[in-house]
Amino acid sequence: MIGLTASGGSVSVGFMNRTELGSALEWRYATKKFDPAKVISPEDWSVLEESLRLSPSSYGLQPWRFHVVQNSQIRQQLKVASWNQSQVTDASHYVVIAYQESVGEADIRKFMETTAMIRGVDVGSLERYRMLIEGDLLTGMRSKEISTWSQRQTYIAMGFVMLAAALLKIDSCPMEGIEADEYDRILGLKGTGFKTVAGVALGYRHAEDKYALSKKVRYPASEIIRYL
Amino acid sequence: MIGLTASGGSVSVGFMNRTELGSALEWRYATKKFDPAKVISPEDWSVLEESLRLSPSSYGLQPWRFHVVQNSQIRQQLKVASWNQSQVTDASHYVVIAYQESVGEADIRKFMETTAMIRGVDVGSLERYRMLIEGDLLTGMRSKEISTWSQRQTYIAMGFVMLAAALLKIDSCPMEGIEADEYDRILGLKGTGFKTVAGVALGYRHAEDKYALSKKVRYPASEIIRYL
Repeated sequence: MIGLTASGGSVSVGFMNRTELGSALEWRYATKKFDPAKVISPEDWSVLEESLRLSPSSYGLQPWRFHVVQNSQIRQQLKVASWNQSQVTDASHYVVIAYQESVGEADIRKFMETTAMIRGVDVGSLERYRMLIEGDLLTGMRSKEISTWSQRQTYIAMGFVMLAAALLKIDSCPMEGIEADEYDRILGLKGTGFKTVAGVALGYRHAEDKYALSKKVRYPASEIIRYL
Repeated sequence: MIGLTASGGSVSVGFMNRTELGSALEWRYATKKFDPAKVISPEDWSVLEESLRLSPSSYGLQPWRFHVVQNSQIRQQLKVASWNQSQVTDASHYVVIAYQESVGEADIRKFMETTAMIRGVDVGSLERYRMLIEGDLLTGMRSKEISTWSQRQTYIAMGFVMLAAALLKIDSCPMEGIEADEYDRILGLKGTGFKTVAGVALGYRHAEDKYALSKKVRYPASEIIRYL
């Protein structure tokens, strides 16, 4: 199927129609109470896992790790380190997002080798790209804010998994109010070069979650979107 | 339509099927060369605008502004401040994402008033929530990293708009390699409390963009996703 753009160029029809997409955006909310009896199917979960893995990141470097916590004892410990918010233990899946604290030459080299292997090219042909990245992240302006840069990238993935979930009518709740340092201890992240930045609870809303009925609070487009 | 979860709970069918979602995730790539003749339709654009506006953020505070640059002279100036990357001028829409540098009492109060208005409740009933947010962002641990916190939130919106675009078969390219300070000057952001963090080019890939055919480079799930 083919559509027409304003300028007359032809554009193929999307993977979904825009009305359904708009509905999914409206449907999503930060779920406070999950139904512990409802579990994300393995088929749905594998797409959510892919939404994390295929998220874009600066230079494609993927400075992240995702921890899917299934062990109920670990979940209980994380709940205590999350002001006892019930989402940590009640949601079907609980993902802890960690960012890479610093990026070094070895990380960039590994990424280049992976690129060369996947694309079937000689790693030497990527030399200019490698130097460009090093010049930015290791010696350039960005080297002073790698931790912030890295944290930002993980939030693209957070956005991807939450929107992907909503499209499958799977509820989510981003969890930022957590004791990240305590999470690191519980998950054994100390000394790995990765640190907890946030969690995402995924599953199905409880019938009693009153927030499901609350109107979404957003500033009007006129206030946050400027055309110029 | 109703499906069954592993645990026997019933779950309604999603806004789209998971195969299509998986295809959209694979289809998306960082578009290097846009077709300047192809324009996003107003109907599609309004959904993309909503994907930005309805993005989740910590406490719902929306510490962001989105600048949609349509003026070709301004686009040209931004291109110069973006290492002359062609996406800035060739893409149908170019969005500059700005984060709020610091959050103050007035911002939180305004958010509470907006919440009270939209939900039809007395603002006094939100007092505990207001104090919770203030205790975290203004006086608590997070007050020391508000700029980083705020930047992170904007990347959720970046993730939302890029995935929303892909679902409509609209291409995108995240633009981090830009001179943010120069962007601020060009867009008149100095002194507004908002600072440029990144851009997102949105539109349609050029038939000659060779990157459209490149294999996506991602680490295997076994390396970045840990189950425990």
